[in-house]
Amino acid sequence: MILQYDGTAYKGWQVQKTGTTIQGLLQEMISRLTGERVQVIGAGRTDAGVHALAQIASFDTSSRIEPPALQRGLNALLPDDIRVTGLDEVASEFHPRKSACRKRYMYLIANMEEIPVFMERYMWGIRFPLDTAKMNAAAGYLMGRHDFSSFRGAKCGSRNTERTIYSIGLEKKEEVMFLFVGFKGTFIRLSIEADGFLRHMARNIIGTLVEVGREKADPQKIIEILASRDRRVAGPMAPARGLFLERVFYAPSL
Amino acid sequence: MILQYDGTAYKGWQVQKTGTTIQGLLQEMISRLTGERVQVIGAGRTDAGVHALAQIASFDTSSRIEPPALQRGLNALLPDDIRVTGLDEVASEFHPRKSACRKRYMYLIANMEEIPVFMERYMWGIRFPLDTAKMNAAAGYLMGRHDFSSFRGAKCGSRNTERTIYSIGLEKKEEVMFLFVGFKGTFIRLSIEADGFLRHMARNIIGTLVEVGREKADPQKIIEILASRDRRVAGPMAPARGLFLERVFYAPSL
Repeated sequence: MILQYDGTAYKGWQVQKTGTTIQGLLQEMISRLTGERVQVIGAGRTDAGVHALAQIASFDTSSRIEPPALQRGLNALLPDDIRVTGLDEVASEFHPRKSACRKRYMYLIANMEEIPVFMERYMWGIRFPLDTAKMNAAAGYLMGRHDFSSFRGAKCGSRNTERTIYSIGLEKKEEVMFLFVGFKGTFIRLSIEADGFLRHMARNIIGTLVEVGREKADPQKIIEILASRDRRVAGPMAPARGLFLERVFYAPSL
Repeated sequence: MILQYDGTAYKGWQVQKTGTTIQGLLQEMISRLTGERVQVIGAGRTDAGVHALAQIASFDTSSRIEPPALQRGLNALLPDDIRVTGLDEVASEFHPRKSACRKRYMYLIANMEEIPVFMERYMWGIRFPLDTAKMNAAAGYLMGRHDFSSFRGAKCGSRNTERTIYSIGLEKKEEVMFLFVGFKGTFIRLSIEADGFLRHMARNIIGTLVEVGREKADPQKIIEILASRDRRVAGPMAPARGLFLERVFYAPSL
């Protein structure tokens, strides 16, 4: 499945003891349609409030419902803020997370006095001016293979803390279109593509780049932060609302 | 005040017996800041779920708080989905609704199989194909001064049901930007500018144009609908979510 969702109303991707999750809702609706209990596996375990433009997920079923009918059925049952934009059979070896070779997240910032209300759910509004050239310079130090321990959340359970960032960069616009309306302001899009992300890694990187942008730290500080392998040395975590799982990449054979 | 709001969570502009309204919240927050009981008057009484890009509203106060401080104070107290984008003193004769000479509403439609989740709050998703050329032709018959009784809601209390539509038209795009991301699909923006709008007039016009678009009625049917002065002859009311109060116009002297 390819999934699009607005994460604002959810406790994140993964099933929790309490609260509605995207994985939980999908499992419930698939069960209703197929009559089977299923486990849905996602490519990225997005946090509460994080969105997805194209999350990838799969499940095993012996149901004979054809994929297009299953997709339509799911979209009829799911709430308006979760949508299945694609659904098809895959090889049984396919695993949304383990088979993924790269993932791309984007993060949106509105750097202006007052962010338009229509963007509140999808952007981090920052009032103080950001030096995006410095942020870009800092981002450059993150490129390549590093131990990202300094950027991982407290509850991260990964043994291997090395990851490779293939691309990271900023794009800036002084006007964005909200559908047919142009809004003036300074809008920043940060993109990070890596072979994997530790827990909260994307948001901790963004938070740290913003510290550089507001000149609380020099771009070169990144080298020091990486070397320290200490979460306390990096900047605070950026809010969930600006983060989108944009794309998951698989090897062509899959 | 110039106000921007996402109407999704509210019972509309006007104070109701139950439920949170935009007028009600504004009055409450202004009272907290000034210590006075105030009545806020708006240019347009938007329905529940209807949004505003630039609603105009005013109130009387003898407070000595400077306008910029009042604006900042209100934005600090108001929820994220209501924003004061401008605030200044006006002549005491100014009345947001009575002084207005024209108002423009826009209405957004996503004419596609599945509307992107991020647009659900702001667009009417329509699956069946729409003939926009026919909709535009139908819209043409609404231009100028007419008795709009056929397009007014049951609870409309206006004595004079004549209004002048200065401009009405469609714009269509096969791709729209949601901030930095392009979404493919057929997106339609309908604009209506008039000297005033009867209750539900904009939404009833849109609903009727959509009936023409899906070829349930010919464009010329509009002439008949206008002449009938009978609400039952026009099409159903379009949902609130796609409607935005875009701009209110005042004579240059104000």
